[in-house]
Amino acid sequence: MVRSLFKAKYIVTCNGRFDIIRDGAVVAEDGKIAYVGKEVGLGECQRHFDLVVDEGCGIMIPGLVNCHTHAAMSLYKGVSDDVPLKEWLEEAIWPLESRVDSTSLLYGNYVAMMEMLSSGTTTFADFYFFDELIKALKVIPMRSIATLALMDRVPDGEVYWSRLKKIGAYVDAVGSVKDGLVGLALGPHAIYSCSEALLLEVAKLSSGLHLPIHIHLSETKEERELSMKEHGVSPVKYLDSLGFLSERVFAAHCVHVDDEDVGILLDRGVSCVHNPSSNLKLGSGIMPLRGILRRGVNVCLGTDGSASSNSLNILAEMRLAVLLQRGISFDPTFPTAKDALLMATRNGARALGLGDRVGSIEVGKRADLVLFDGRSPRLLPEHDIVSNVVYSSQPADVAYTIVDGRILYDHGRFAGIDSGSVLDIFGERALKLLEG
Amino acid sequence: MVRSLFKAKYIVTCNGRFDIIRDGAVVAEDGKIAYVGKEVGLGECQRHFDLVVDEGCGIMIPGLVNCHTHAAMSLYKGVSDDVPLKEWLEEAIWPLESRVDSTSLLYGNYVAMMEMLSSGTTTFADFYFFDELIKALKVIPMRSIATLALMDRVPDGEVYWSRLKKIGAYVDAVGSVKDGLVGLALGPHAIYSCSEALLLEVAKLSSGLHLPIHIHLSETKEERELSMKEHGVSPVKYLDSLGFLSERVFAAHCVHVDDEDVGILLDRGVSCVHNPSSNLKLGSGIMPLRGILRRGVNVCLGTDGSASSNSLNILAEMRLAVLLQRGISFDPTFPTAKDALLMATRNGARALGLGDRVGSIEVGKRADLVLFDGRSPRLLPEHDIVSNVVYSSQPADVAYTIVDGRILYDHGRFAGIDSGSVLDIFGERALKLLEG
Repeated sequence: MVRSLFKAKYIVTCNGRFDIIRDGAVVAEDGKIAYVGKEVGLGECQRHFDLVVDEGCGIMIPGLVNCHTHAAMSLYKGVSDDVPLKEWLEEAIWPLESRVDSTSLLYGNYVAMMEMLSSGTTTFADFYFFDELIKALKVIPMRSIATLALMDRVPDGEVYWSRLKKIGAYVDAVGSVKDGLVGLALGPHAIYSCSEALLLEVAKLSSGLHLPIHIHLSETKEERELSMKEHGVSPVKYLDSLGFLSERVFAAHCVHVDDEDVGILLDRGVSCVHNPSSNLKLGSGIMPLRGILRRGVNVCLGTDGSASSNSLNILAEMRLAVLLQRGISFDPTFPTAKDALLMATRNGARALGLGDRVGSIEVGKRADLVLFDGRSPRLLPEHDIVSNVVYSSQPADVAYTIVDGRILYDHGRFAGIDSGSVLDIFGERALKLLEG
Repeated sequence: MVRSLFKAKYIVTCNGRFDIIRDGAVVAEDGKIAYVGKEVGLGECQRHFDLVVDEGCGIMIPGLVNCHTHAAMSLYKGVSDDVPLKEWLEEAIWPLESRVDSTSLLYGNYVAMMEMLSSGTTTFADFYFFDELIKALKVIPMRSIATLALMDRVPDGEVYWSRLKKIGAYVDAVGSVKDGLVGLALGPHAIYSCSEALLLEVAKLSSGLHLPIHIHLSETKEERELSMKEHGVSPVKYLDSLGFLSERVFAAHCVHVDDEDVGILLDRGVSCVHNPSSNLKLGSGIMPLRGILRRGVNVCLGTDGSASSNSLNILAEMRLAVLLQRGISFDPTFPTAKDALLMATRNGARALGLGDRVGSIEVGKRADLVLFDGRSPRLLPEHDIVSNVVYSSQPADVAYTIVDGRILYDHGRFAGIDSGSVLDIFGERALKLLEG
């Protein structure tokens, strides 16, 4: 058994009582949390560790959960920044995707994972090329939900139906990654790209195999208008009419939803993934987060892919989620820093069906941890530790990112990969891709 | 003479043609730029340097200009985060300010300057305690506009009038900082805190002594409503009716301005300082930046103080300025990354009356430079260098920050100060201050 000790001046547990432990310690045994509490509470006889991490004035939080990204799209970061979503997708991204090769995608995943680890993300839900994600996760053991992308209102739609027929192979593929770090989600892309038959089949499979569903929902005005035209109801109501919505669904964006939609999402137990940077940059609009949170819907956070938001820094999404709602409502009292931190941890874990494994620092959960260097101009003074993490911290302050008890990021260094040559290969391949 | 060479894979000059130079070099002679161009364009005979900075795959931009902050308020970061501006000011901040001591303010300035340097800021306009700022600037030689804060609609208003009577001493004080790095601005706090007589006196002094004016303007709905009640017109129109507005005025916030106000600001040559994080977090609202930029007003950026926005990272303000406007307008085509970079460089320099000295990388200007480590997961691939700087870069990517040809920040290290002990003293003093 590997026993590890992680020490911090402050541990923000994100447990049910939102305990913050001063001069705390976490002990992990084979990656599972066996002790959380004051360091002095550890008996002397228990003080034998294979690994000790002590970041002096450190601040520890649960590993952050990015509930919606397209990791390998890092390859296209900065391509076509200033155009509407439809044009961006059809004229810039799809042509690139039609010629992207497997090795480039693998390196796109590596670099995306480096960016996420360096900003405290330990778990991410990816929605892109499945095989290359699994390959990358075997090299960099982050926790992940790998989404099987599906759509059939496109020219080669039959390809995606054939995926559903061999669903067992995909279940096996995620199972082949060690330590149960990776799970499978079904990913019907969106209502405008999927037929009713496909959506019904996905709902059936999800129920039978207990698989989460990852979907884009009500992202743009246009999507909502098209649904009204095609189905006579909003995208949320359309999905509900199919019996599609359940607590297994996590829906990215939910920008254009009305009160009735929110009521349905709440009743069905759907989780909403807020992606503020992406929604703003693409001109999609602003999710009515305050109303959704107040109703009690489970809201979590996502960065979306680097091709749309240009960044996989979930710390920035936490800050932006709060600031944005305050600005548009002229109300600086809600949401708070605590709301944002919970969205990025516990709520995210719950959305992905991982609520009993991660999302808080509690005995019995897996040791997914972030340690900030609290001795930074940004994280001092210590008036409010949660406020400092949410409003002030930057990737530069992340000292360690730990997944399942393993240190994957340590002060700029990445475990298990030659990051310099990965970056070089990635940079060259991405440029070549654009040359065509 | 000290001759320095700064090399970069890309130099984003922010000159009038917005040239981007590949494999470029900047030569500075005693802090003044003597050469900007291809590295191969440097003749062999010129290759004798006292200092060579070569950040391999570096990206160089002009030093960033933060046009509105209250540096030493870093002491109060995280205090009272979730209350309206008036309550925050009157119940949290003013009581703290009434007992703050000179040494704490000095350390507040040091730590704020560390945070700014680590995120690429070379010039800042400060609006807070004058004496302690000057002291701090003699230790950390950043470029700055030191504002003499003025208000007389407060209990001890006569104190501020006496400042104006000894204005010569303040001019001498900024002159005592070497190399002309620091300039003086007059700082009537806002129309609700200053009498008409004070505003008129400031306008007269500004005109006679050629001093810039730094003011808070139209920050909240309440300020606008009060002006309508007291003066029958908007804050902008009120100031214009006094003959107060000129090209020497840079006005922070300008959130609640209408088309007529914007026309006046344009006609008088006033610069507007956009502080998106602060305006959002305090629930003040969102500046109508698109309209203001399109009319041709000079708009620059500010972080405001850490007590309101919790961060002095101007990189985040660049990104947010663009994203926010796109989101509220449903238009992803404007503003662009280039607009944001110019706001944070050339426009900022112009606003502070430093347009002929800094704000772009051009021969004859002072060598205020930022060098990013381009070999970062965030700054690759190199599809669009300006997009990468504005949307993707983080303080973690800032390799060097150079002011007047001197390296003040170098990969986490700060020149001239013992940063570790500065942080310790700052952290302790800030906590004690809160204890009362």
